[in-house]
Amino acid sequence: MKKYNKKDFPVSEIRRFLEPGPIVLVSSKYKEETNIMTMGWHTVLEFTPSLIGCMITSANHSFNLIKKSKECVINIPELHLAETVVGIGNCSGRDVDKFDKFGLTAEDATMVKAPLIAECYAHFECKIHDAKMLNKYNFFIFEVVKAHAAVSPKYPETIHYRGEGHFMVSGKAVSYRNKFLPQNL
Amino acid sequence: MKKYNKKDFPVSEIRRFLEPGPIVLVSSKYKEETNIMTMGWHTVLEFTPSLIGCMITSANHSFNLIKKSKECVINIPELHLAETVVGIGNCSGRDVDKFDKFGLTAEDATMVKAPLIAECYAHFECKIHDAKMLNKYNFFIFEVVKAHAAVSPKYPETIHYRGEGHFMVSGKAVSYRNKFLPQNL
Repeated sequence: MKKYNKKDFPVSEIRRFLEPGPIVLVSSKYKEETNIMTMGWHTVLEFTPSLIGCMITSANHSFNLIKKSKECVINIPELHLAETVVGIGNCSGRDVDKFDKFGLTAEDATMVKAPLIAECYAHFECKIHDAKMLNKYNFFIFEVVKAHAAVSPKYPETIHYRGEGHFMVSGKAVSYRNKFLPQNL
Repeated sequence: MKKYNKKDFPVSEIRRFLEPGPIVLVSSKYKEETNIMTMGWHTVLEFTPSLIGCMITSANHSFNLIKKSKECVINIPELHLAETVVGIGNCSGRDVDKFDKFGLTAEDATMVKAPLIAECYAHFECKIHDAKMLNKYNFFIFEVVKAHAAVSPKYPETIHYRGEGHFMVSGKAVSYRNKFLPQNL
């Protein structure tokens, strides 16, 4: 399995990885139970505090672990984990230990009890910031309290879900930096 | 400029285009004034009704047009419009008519007064579904009430923002459909 050299990443800059819209793996822990789910419905909401909004169906086993523990970790998988990502999304933590089933490594996080998934490119440790939209929309607002990202490559080769089993893989990088107003960079 | 043959698209299936996380153009109209903004902070929230959540900074001129009219159109631009997308994000509708400045064609929508941007690949006509998160998070929840998409190509060549002037272009398509449980497709 691919190994990464990771370092701390500024929480105010995680939009670099989340705004392009990748499928992510959400790890959680409540008491002694851990779980992992795949998630595609998320958005950046604010730079500072570093807020992200995530829709997590209440039928998901992870929903209650996150709601009760008030924490989770959002992990960014690369293409080499695509089959694992799909497998995780097609079984339930009610029935299996997903770290065990998929041979993933749970590493200790810094600020939360939920584990990092070592095989992923980046990790965002999250605490619930606002749960008011949970009842109506299953929408969590998390604050990212700590971030870790691989030093290389600069950008991960992410997978982006289109529904019906189909994905898009992140493609070429283009820059229009010279067309931006300085205050918009 | 590229021309598309478009047809109605099911509103419950727009995740095909939005879940991968592209930069979109939001067109709006209040009374006689129209505007366009670029937006990267959005997420799908529900299939039926077709709900999407969008963070739009209140400093944006479009914020008030959308808030007052309670409507907008979300348009999906392809890579060939990238410079236009960046240009739109780096000027204000307070100062210029963006349709005029960027040579874009405003077409009548079906269910809202905000115009479609004809040069885009797809259009999602939106009405505000819930404005309760506006004051605290500038977060609109829209219902997509009508969708139009190009017949071809099947998937648009979208651009995805990473911040600091840098974008990712949508890459290759991969399918793991045979790894999904039928109920998850």
